[in-house]
Amino acid sequence: MPRASSGCRPDDGLAVRAALEREPPRSAVVVGAGYIGLELAEALCARGIPVTVIQRGRTPMDTLDPDMGGMLVEAMRRFTMTLRLEEAVTGFETDAGRVRAVVTDQGTVPADLVILGLGVRPNSELAATAGIPLGPTGAIAVDQRLRTRVAGVWAAGDCVEKFHRVSRRPVTIALGTHANKEGRTAGINLGGGYATFPGVLGTAVTKICDVEVGRTGLGEAEAEAAGFEAVSVSVDSTTRAGYYPGARPIRTKLVAERGSGRLLGAQIVGEEGAAKRIDVLATALWHETTVSELLNVDLSYAPPFSPLWDPVLIAARKASQAVEADRQTNDDLTRPSR
Amino acid sequence: MPRASSGCRPDDGLAVRAALEREPPRSAVVVGAGYIGLELAEALCARGIPVTVIQRGRTPMDTLDPDMGGMLVEAMRRFTMTLRLEEAVTGFETDAGRVRAVVTDQGTVPADLVILGLGVRPNSELAATAGIPLGPTGAIAVDQRLRTRVAGVWAAGDCVEKFHRVSRRPVTIALGTHANKEGRTAGINLGGGYATFPGVLGTAVTKICDVEVGRTGLGEAEAEAAGFEAVSVSVDSTTRAGYYPGARPIRTKLVAERGSGRLLGAQIVGEEGAAKRIDVLATALWHETTVSELLNVDLSYAPPFSPLWDPVLIAARKASQAVEADRQTNDDLTRPSR
Repeated sequence: MPRASSGCRPDDGLAVRAALEREPPRSAVVVGAGYIGLELAEALCARGIPVTVIQRGRTPMDTLDPDMGGMLVEAMRRFTMTLRLEEAVTGFETDAGRVRAVVTDQGTVPADLVILGLGVRPNSELAATAGIPLGPTGAIAVDQRLRTRVAGVWAAGDCVEKFHRVSRRPVTIALGTHANKEGRTAGINLGGGYATFPGVLGTAVTKICDVEVGRTGLGEAEAEAAGFEAVSVSVDSTTRAGYYPGARPIRTKLVAERGSGRLLGAQIVGEEGAAKRIDVLATALWHETTVSELLNVDLSYAPPFSPLWDPVLIAARKASQAVEADRQTNDDLTRPSR
Repeated sequence: MPRASSGCRPDDGLAVRAALEREPPRSAVVVGAGYIGLELAEALCARGIPVTVIQRGRTPMDTLDPDMGGMLVEAMRRFTMTLRLEEAVTGFETDAGRVRAVVTDQGTVPADLVILGLGVRPNSELAATAGIPLGPTGAIAVDQRLRTRVAGVWAAGDCVEKFHRVSRRPVTIALGTHANKEGRTAGINLGGGYATFPGVLGTAVTKICDVEVGRTGLGEAEAEAAGFEAVSVSVDSTTRAGYYPGARPIRTKLVAERGSGRLLGAQIVGEEGAAKRIDVLATALWHETTVSELLNVDLSYAPPFSPLWDPVLIAARKASQAVEADRQTNDDLTRPSR
């Protein structure tokens, strides 16, 4: 069960490290292939401990679309992790109060260290007990100034429901970036000033082994769930000019609305220098750009930094073409026959 | 005199390299400390050739404000270049048709290789001779579809006058990014399609020794020349979380309009991982963001990629405070005394 918390606690990390140093495990199992699970799996691998990652879903990192998340499988295997997908943990075998193995719906995996990275849910229990209303997501409902519905009580952080600027729905996303900005907003208001928190895109980056990952806005399934119909493209490019030393692969995926071509979300999987480009896409998304507008934005170029058309712009160009092709097909279908 | 051309030609690079290999110079002088001059100075240094860079202006890289350009001085000296600022070249000493020294208004600098990196101006002579009107900058005047004022004649690239989206004035800026996008636009139109080129911000990056540089929009002097009054801030931060290996310094400068807080331009000087962040600022600038809007944009964070508040956001927060402080001072001044 996901822990009700504000993300992972530094204490947990210290406890794991102390355990590793006291008695190095012969093998470890990480349950859950999200940000925390994969970062811990990488750290254990780096210490030479054989690691198995067990994931219930079809691909690691399910904040990405499966086609993008699937790109991590190869990187994890290259880093000598064992990855077991579509497998559900059902229990543990213990021996004198110590874990000995993880039991799944498909077998038993020996382990003398088990780490659960199963996600987080908002820690809104205290608020609920105190009579502060929660929103539909189970997080504390707040207005744009971070006021709860009880006068004089403010809330900020992972316990708080956020407004998603693309789906226009309340969401719970546990990111330090949101929590910090909310803290600033609530603090200004509490101090007698005026500030609002304008919502989130769910922009996030991480690094797993030698692969960098970035995402912002809605993935394909999220776009559909929010009522959009979408056109998606994925484009392979390089982080620097192809001939420049250190040019690494980068795949950029854009999700755009059918018809309007409005950008709905973006995902990046690549190697060194890839992931932070997600911020350009987040900034474009923040301003409700279309992919055809985006392709002309005056981004920088020099061979040590990007190809002449930055991967972001190449993806926008391809997405613009895909939206246009879809529109023409649609026009053909809706045109009255003579 | 600046060469009329579309930037530097690959042929020039090959000729310089052939000369270096035929007869390695004992010392080289680079005249001009812009992109091309500094990149060549770095390349010569890397080959172990003593290099002196002579620059007429007060700081290197005068596409940056002097406070930011001045940060390059230390990097260049660390890289063993000799830098002579505020010095004008007046001639050359030659011996049997070969250069022996560069003569300046302050002395004589021995050199058996001299490279001039003095900037470019639009190569619009052919067009002018053919009766195609030029614009006020001396580049070929075109409309948004890249049509010249002579029916059936189109133009694209460094020879063409561009619309600057912040100053709203015609400019000449020789960048491959603009030229390529213009080529695409003209090509679509020539092929019977419809496309417009929406103008430029002058976004550029470069790397000099171990220092990365980025700029977009207007610098302080350019903002003033365009009729704006501006508030500027510079903020020192790191490219990654401070405790994370590989965190490098980054200084971000923002220029914002007094009163409105509208972003007018941005500059970055830093080390590895710094410069490409200029694209986030270019995207914000493209959408006419204010610095107070920018500080809330949902950018990504993970320790290998940035501090929790990305340097771009810290700069926006400080700029927002500076605009606000300026506004309050202004209010105090304009408030009628009782």
